Amino acid sequence: MKIIIDCMGGDNAPAEMLKGAVAAKGELGGEYILVGHKEKLSACAAELGLSLDGFEILHAEDVVTMEDDAMAAAKTKKDSSMAVGLRALAEGAGDAIVSCGNTGALFSGATLIVKRAKGIHRAAIATVLPYDPPVLLLDSGANVVVTTEHLVEFAVMGASYYSKLFGVEDPKVGLLSNGTEETKGTPLCREAYERLTEAKETMGVNFVGNVEAGAVPFGACHVVVTDGFTGNILLKTVEGAGKLVMGRLKGMFYSSALTKLAALIMKKHLAGFKHSFDATEHGGSPILGISKPVIKAHGSSNAKAFKNAIRQAKTYAESGAIDHISQVMQSKEGQL
Amino acid sequence: MKIIIDCMGGDNAPAEMLKGAVAAKGELGGEYILVGHKEKLSACAAELGLSLDGFEILHAEDVVTMEDDAMAAAKTKKDSSMAVGLRALAEGAGDAIVSCGNTGALFSGATLIVKRAKGIHRAAIATVLPYDPPVLLLDSGANVVVTTEHLVEFAVMGASYYSKLFGVEDPKVGLLSNGTEETKGTPLCREAYERLTEAKETMGVNFVGNVEAGAVPFGACHVVVTDGFTGNILLKTVEGAGKLVMGRLKGMFYSSALTKLAALIMKKHLAGFKHSFDATEHGGSPILGISKPVIKAHGSSNAKAFKNAIRQAKTYAESGAIDHISQVMQSKEGQL
Repeated sequence: MKIIIDCMGGDNAPAEMLKGAVAAKGELGGEYILVGHKEKLSACAAELGLSLDGFEILHAEDVVTMEDDAMAAAKTKKDSSMAVGLRALAEGAGDAIVSCGNTGALFSGATLIVKRAKGIHRAAIATVLPYDPPVLLLDSGANVVVTTEHLVEFAVMGASYYSKLFGVEDPKVGLLSNGTEETKGTPLCREAYERLTEAKETMGVNFVGNVEAGAVPFGACHVVVTDGFTGNILLKTVEGAGKLVMGRLKGMFYSSALTKLAALIMKKHLAGFKHSFDATEHGGSPILGISKPVIKAHGSSNAKAFKNAIRQAKTYAESGAIDHISQVMQSKEGQL
Repeated sequence: MKIIIDCMGGDNAPAEMLKGAVAAKGELGGEYILVGHKEKLSACAAELGLSLDGFEILHAEDVVTMEDDAMAAAKTKKDSSMAVGLRALAEGAGDAIVSCGNTGALFSGATLIVKRAKGIHRAAIATVLPYDPPVLLLDSGANVVVTTEHLVEFAVMGASYYSKLFGVEDPKVGLLSNGTEETKGTPLCREAYERLTEAKETMGVNFVGNVEAGAVPFGACHVVVTDGFTGNILLKTVEGAGKLVMGRLKGMFYSSALTKLAALIMKKHLAGFKHSFDATEHGGSPILGISKPVIKAHGSSNAKAFKNAIRQAKTYAESGAIDHISQVMQSKEGQL
């Protein structure tokens, strides 16, 4: 297993990426290709006192920034660490890639360079929300406009990935809407409701109907299907709420000597509490529907989050989910 | 000031509505019309040991349920407490109405019976999110499909209401999107961005551009404008997160004798914390754009939440916001 690491993308590149990669190598073993500006990587590693012995380094002169146009970056910035890494993946130099870079650029780069898996018409970013049971949200931000056919594909891909990742046989798939009744939602939602009801018969999708956003944390379904615009709103709202909660709890517990005592008592619990609101605990978000594993790690990933994303890339690559998704989609072609 | 109370709508009707109305009368004074089935209201009041002396009671034989079709209910259920109450408001028997009933039915009933304010083409439900500063979200659930003209109206109405409610002169208005750049969002979002930028010049809307869902709790803007589908997703996600947080905190603090001690220390803080995630603390949600104050209280309102909604109805009726909105919209007609 060889993982390709885009060391130059994200807010904390390359330092946290290098620390994460070194930690992953120690913990998970395996081989790694670090993609980035050679001198910069060496200088950064030296500064951090990290040894890059045993790592393959693939030079990339340029970087895709957050300001780059998502659609164009993969084509115009051929020497960026992202494009070089994606090409290495496409050519078989490694088994998976992890990047914290520009989500849109990674998504279109993956589609253009690595290509979609057979039978898939649209890829989607799938993000695990840290609930109990975990909930897989897709599309969590790539496709602002989708068709009902895409939503059915997302359902099939999401269910397959979920079952491989969490060992749940027929994960419940819900369609995000503003009410559980089938009459609720946008025209697209209502049409997708019908198509997913058909897919329950024809493709074995365990479609449980519409789910409201308020029911998502409480086991309404395992996989939530929606367009990338709405998925982004849900995901970012959850992240914002988590940040707000942690900030307010901190303020509460640090307000007096007595509350600091309470904080001491609750220390272990609070750490667990924090984790249970931290989507990066589950690693990065795979771009499902691409022919090889492409993992988007959070732009603000620190070393630990990045290490988790690397672990997830490994799990994803080993899971056989991509072949499974392709088989299902190809066998059902014409039914979509 | 006379407030009309729909006593039969919502999960906890009529008991919590009666308790809330009695508490509001004691706390805020004013006159009240209780709308509902006379015998049922009397029996419920007797059971609760509540005196309804000084309350006007308006009989309504029927009730709008959550299962009723939103568009049809106002027309077909003419004898429902909701329709009777809305007619009383339209005819001038009272100054405002508060209902916990079926959101869609209340929205269409308000539009059909009470009518929109002059110059307004589409009403919207506006909900206060309990952040610091508070954030007004509209549309939070009524209009699943909107035009850019509607979104500009929502911006004008929201800003006017916010400034009247919270005393902020030129509240910052943001357009909910999946990124701050003007190129982000659905085609509707991108068009609305342009129209709102124009409205900044022509209508004095303090438009600050796109806001991401993750920035909403942290002062990105005072008023968030979006369609009712996306608004519902954001609102319900916030509510779900609040419920999840409170459940987990409870689990944490009740896990041992020691953590219970910590809970005791933190008691006061935790109560404040709970309030700061409880949207019902700010009362109900006005349907902005209707010619008279119509307030939607949360379907699961208890007496306290309902009392807060009554207080908000009073504040809204006294604020002059409806006249202000109409004036702005009429003076700008043709620019929209």
